[in-house]
Formats: sequence, C-alpha cells, structure tokens
Amino acid sequence: MVASMARYEHGGDVYTETGARSGLVDFSANLNPLGMPEQVVRALREAADSFDVYPDLQCRELKRALADKLGVPAGCIVCTAGATDLIWRLCRAIRPQTALLVAPGFSGYEQALERVGARIVRHALSEQEGWRVTERILDEVPLVGGTESAQQRAIVFLCSPNNPTGITIERSLIVRVLEAAQRVGAIVVLDECFLAFTRKASAVELCERFPNLVVMRAFTKTYAMAGLRLGYGVCSDARLLNGLEEVGQPWAVSVPAQVAGITALGVEGWIERSRAYVDANRSTLAQGLRGLGMQVIPGEANYLLFRSPVEIYEPLLERGFLVRRCGNYEGLDRSWYRVAVRTAEENAALLQALGAIWEQLLHDDQMEEGR
Amino acid sequence: MVASMARYEHGGDVYTETGARSGLVDFSANLNPLGMPEQVVRALREAADSFDVYPDLQCRELKRALADKLGVPAGCIVCTAGATDLIWRLCRAIRPQTALLVAPGFSGYEQALERVGARIVRHALSEQEGWRVTERILDEVPLVGGTESAQQRAIVFLCSPNNPTGITIERSLIVRVLEAAQRVGAIVVLDECFLAFTRKASAVELCERFPNLVVMRAFTKTYAMAGLRLGYGVCSDARLLNGLEEVGQPWAVSVPAQVAGITALGVEGWIERSRAYVDANRSTLAQGLRGLGMQVIPGEANYLLFRSPVEIYEPLLERGFLVRRCGNYEGLDRSWYRVAVRTAEENAALLQALGAIWEQLLHDDQMEEGR
Repeated sequence: MVASMARYEHGGDVYTETGARSGLVDFSANLNPLGMPEQVVRALREAADSFDVYPDLQCRELKRALADKLGVPAGCIVCTAGATDLIWRLCRAIRPQTALLVAPGFSGYEQALERVGARIVRHALSEQEGWRVTERILDEVPLVGGTESAQQRAIVFLCSPNNPTGITIERSLIVRVLEAAQRVGAIVVLDECFLAFTRKASAVELCERFPNLVVMRAFTKTYAMAGLRLGYGVCSDARLLNGLEEVGQPWAVSVPAQVAGITALGVEGWIERSRAYVDANRSTLAQGLRGLGMQVIPGEANYLLFRSPVEIYEPLLERGFLVRRCGNYEGLDRSWYRVAVRTAEENAALLQALGAIWEQLLHDDQMEEGR
Repeated sequence: MVASMARYEHGGDVYTETGARSGLVDFSANLNPLGMPEQVVRALREAADSFDVYPDLQCRELKRALADKLGVPAGCIVCTAGATDLIWRLCRAIRPQTALLVAPGFSGYEQALERVGARIVRHALSEQEGWRVTERILDEVPLVGGTESAQQRAIVFLCSPNNPTGITIERSLIVRVLEAAQRVGAIVVLDECFLAFTRKASAVELCERFPNLVVMRAFTKTYAMAGLRLGYGVCSDARLLNGLEEVGQPWAVSVPAQVAGITALGVEGWIERSRAYVDANRSTLAQGLRGLGMQVIPGEANYLLFRSPVEIYEPLLERGFLVRRCGNYEGLDRSWYRVAVRTAEENAALLQALGAIWEQLLHDDQMEEGR
C-alpha cells in the first residue's frame, strides 16, 4: 500500500502531509474555490437523520435530475462513488487488453488498468505542440484497438481539460478519435471532471451517435464534494451500462452523496458563477507566477501547471502551503508543479510566500558570494 | 440488472416498493430499532461543511478508534464502504476457486463469489438441528479447501448470528472450523454484522492465533448507518490485509462515513442499551407471532425468521408494512418470512395488522362456506 501510494501520489492528501503541520492551505487538490454550495451543506444538515436507511440502489431521483440537466435519457446514466469508482468499473467491466493514455495525465487510469493487466500505450504530449492532444493520436488508436479484422478489447482515456495541463481537446478531434476507435472496436472514455471550469461544451450529446463513448463526470471538483464520493458516466450502449452497474458492489452511492448531488444540480447559476470566479483568479495567479519567473502553461481549468527554476515544494510546505509536485507524471520532471486556483486571498498569499522564498534564495546566494 | 435484483432481493429496498405507497414501515431491513445515535446525527450536521475535502485514504483516525475499542492493533484493520465492499474485496483479493456457504444464508456472499467464478458448496442447515451450524461442517471444509497436499484457494463464509435464522455459532465450533480450514489453506470469513444485538462475544481475539480468519463487522446495523456505507474487517495476515486495501478503489470510505464511525464508537453504553431494547421487544414480538400461529425460530438477533400458514407479504404491504419474503433463500420456501425487531409501537402495529389479515381470511372462509 505505502509503496503504491508514493507512485500514485495525488493531490489533496493533507492527512499525510499535515501530521504536526495542521492548517495547511491545500493547493494540491483542484476543488472549486467557492467551496461546496451552501444549499448542499444545508440539505446535508437537514437530511442527516435520514442517513440510517439504505440508499436507493438505482439512484433513481439523482439519475432523473442528471437526465434533466444534461438532456440525455436517465437510462443512459450510471452513478458511482466518485469518478474513480467509474474508472475501476470500466476497467473491470471491459477488461481491456490494451489502453491508450495521454502523457502527462491523471495517474488514476493507470492505477486501475494495472489491476486488470492491461498493456498501456502512451500518447506523449509535447511542449512544442503546446501540450495539446493532436492528430497524431489518430494513428495511435489502431495500435491499442488492433485492426478492423482482429480487434482487441481496448480503452482510450481522454481528459478534457487534461490534468495536469488544463488544456482542452478540440471537439472535431474528439469526433475523429471516436470514429477511429469505432473502426477497431475500442471504447473512448472522455473525462470531463474539470470541464465546468472551462468555456467548452460537454460532449455528452455525442453519446447517441457513438455507443463507444463514455463521458465521465463528477461532483467532486465542480461542487467541491470530494469527501462525499459522487461521480457518473453517460453512455448509450445498454450492454456496457449494464456491465458497469453489475461490476460495482450494491449501495456504492451513499445517501449523503445522493442528497448532495440532487441538491447541487438545483443550485441556479452555480457553474456560471464558479467559472467567472476561476477565470478572473486564474489570470491573476498565472500573471503572478510568470512575474516570479515561472513558465506557466496556459491552462483553461481551475488549476495551473508551471515549471519552476528552483525547488519550491518543501519551502512552501514550511510556509503552510501544499502544492502538487509533478515529478511522478509520465512526461514531466521534478521542475514541474501544479497549483489549484483558490480564492483571491489564498492565491495572493501563495504568491507572497513564493516571493519570500525567492528573496531568501537571493539572500543565501549573496551570502555565499560574500564569503 | 433487473433480473439479478430479483434473484438477490434484499431487505430495505423501500425505493422499489414504495412507488405510490410512501410511508411504508420497513420491517425488511434489520437496523437498530433505536435508530442512529443522536450524537452521530449531531456530528454529521456539524461536519457537513467539511465534506468538501478528500477523505483520509487510510482512515487513520477511524482505525485508531476501532483498535482501541476492539483491543487489536490498528494495522490489523481494513475499513470499507459497508460490509458488502469487504465481501467484494475478499472475493477479488483471494479469487477463491471454491467457497463454502451456509444455507439459508445472506445472498451477498454468493453475489460477490459469482463475479469471480467461484464454485459454491453449501452447508445445509436443517430444521431438525434447530437451524444450527453443526460439526457436520468440519467434513465439508476439506471439500472446498482441497487436501493438505493439494490445496485450492477457498473461502468459508460463516455468519454469527446467521442471517436470516438469527442463530449464533458456538465459539468452540468456530475454532474447530478455523483449524480445519488452516489445514487445507482456506480463509474463514466470520460475519459478525449482527453480533452486537446478541449476548455472544466477538471472535476478533482469535485473529492473532488464526491468520486465516477475517472477522467482518459493520456500523450499518448496530448504529443504523445503512445510508453512510461503513464496514471493516479484522485480520492478522499482513499480506491479505494489503491485498484487501489494494483491490479497493482509493477513497472508498467517505468523510461522512469516517466522521460517523469515529463518533459512534465514542457513544457510551450504546451496545448495552440497544441489546436490552432488542431483547425485550424480540420476546414480545416472537410471542405475538406465535400467538397468531406462526412457527418462529428462536433467533438471538434483532430479527425473527418465521413460517406463516398463509401468504402475508402482499396483504401486509397493502397495510403499509414491508417484510422480507424468504423464498429466494436456498433451503427456505415461500412460507418463510423475516421481520426486524423494531420499536415496541411498530411491532405492536405489525401484530395488529397480521391479526386483521387473519380475521379477514376467516371472514372470507366463512362467506365461502356460507354460499
């Protein structure tokens, strides 16, 4: 467990990092800086005495609310205990022989794929291409899916906006990937967990045309509900949906998660408000980081990937800030970091701490020279 | 999904049964009749605004609280999203070729075993033996575990008190089953989910002596926390524990579940109070059922299994009571029913409804004769 934890280090593990250092400001988990909607907190408080009964196995009310919101049939939705539960179910239901992953990308796909023994092929993003997924991927899809005559069970994982880069994938390219995957019998999982923070539209309406598409979404980031575990998938392939339901244990989605999800979907204007807030504060944060000499990737989500000329993880931790080291992402090295866009005040405090670290380094250098 | 739902029909599915009939009194789920401790409800309300952050992956505080309570090392505990999550993890971590199940017994074991393709052997309980697990089982363990020289991967599932009979297994027999299982390399899973309602002691302290024992427990029934999904296993085999951690998805145990669990363990006298309440009301309920001509099994838990001379499921549903039909239990038929011991008032109302059904039948019979 401990060994794999390091390998799959993830944002938000304040429990390990805090230890004696409580009160850390967590820039490593990419939650909505507005926090959980107050309506959701209130609904959870009101419903607390109803958490005694078993959850609805089929999440009927939640699926209806999602169907209304997304404009898809409720029968095309599978609800899960966070997006991670859906990733694990996909791997167990499909049992892919091969998988295509974008690198750098979220390590959670690989962690689940490893358990079912899938061979992993990587679509390496490049700095020269601005870390975008490009047409090159169309030649790689057949590598995992096999040929039209000899198909393998395969999954292509796409993430838009990608984590940790924050760059979205062009709609037209997604369609072409779906077509290429369809020809070789591969399933495309499109992770939209951070999409609400961007100005791009969801690809859910492609599900009807492409039964090999599973759109993955979660409440975790958009509604800052990481502790409640609620995600879902949209897909038009009834057999795959059935497999995803059956491969998960019964009562996977708790009552608090269902209550929170239903309430969150009813909060008017939440997405628009969150997006506007993130937009404004991402610009300021990016500008501040660039001003400190960081190379910042122009991400579209509620987090920023950047390269630092010096080690900042430990110095920031000492000053009470937890950021995401990106050295364990395939395709990145230890000079890369990811920070969430948090509140204006918190972002300013982070920049100030970085400024202080810079001054300290400068001072140390001068002392060194003066000797 | 729908097909398997019927086959694995389970108590507590009020969502399916209510439909138009809301306000059903649910005698089909065996939760603590005292409900969730008010301290837990209060703690959940107070903590609701902290459900935004990721749960502790390793459930450190909860494990420490459990370790204190049970007198076992925290390192011997695995926390899961309900007992069902543990059952599924056990099946996936061990991948048993064969399994020994007690019949009638909880269908959840079989549902999980089926997913990993295990061959199932049954220890059939008999009415003549008072539905007790007897020494006969010692001859059956080698059937699943293979021989001392040629062992198979095998699990023996025991449940004490057994569901749906409510009968506990003698400590001395558990030890002999563990010894027999050890000889043929089989793992014994002892489900103690309902044990807190009986006067019997837990077998957790046998874990040290028997690394092939996994004691399974949950907060679901004892603390009426079915909606929160929290269970755990105790085992001294570090490799198996590690496997159980790794086979489950990260963040399986939500923040509300961890908060509720930690709080519940701190509620003074809860087990004693619950046991006393169940004891008194089980006697009254059993007496009432016998008075109506039911054949009641002398169970020790917070539920009663009984045989009815007439069909009562639909007539009770019409009167607002949901009970557990037991026709889908291996070894029982449609004449068997299981009801939870609920509050004194609710039990009296159930008995009254059954009385009314009796009178109606008598009246119908007389009308028939009178024609």
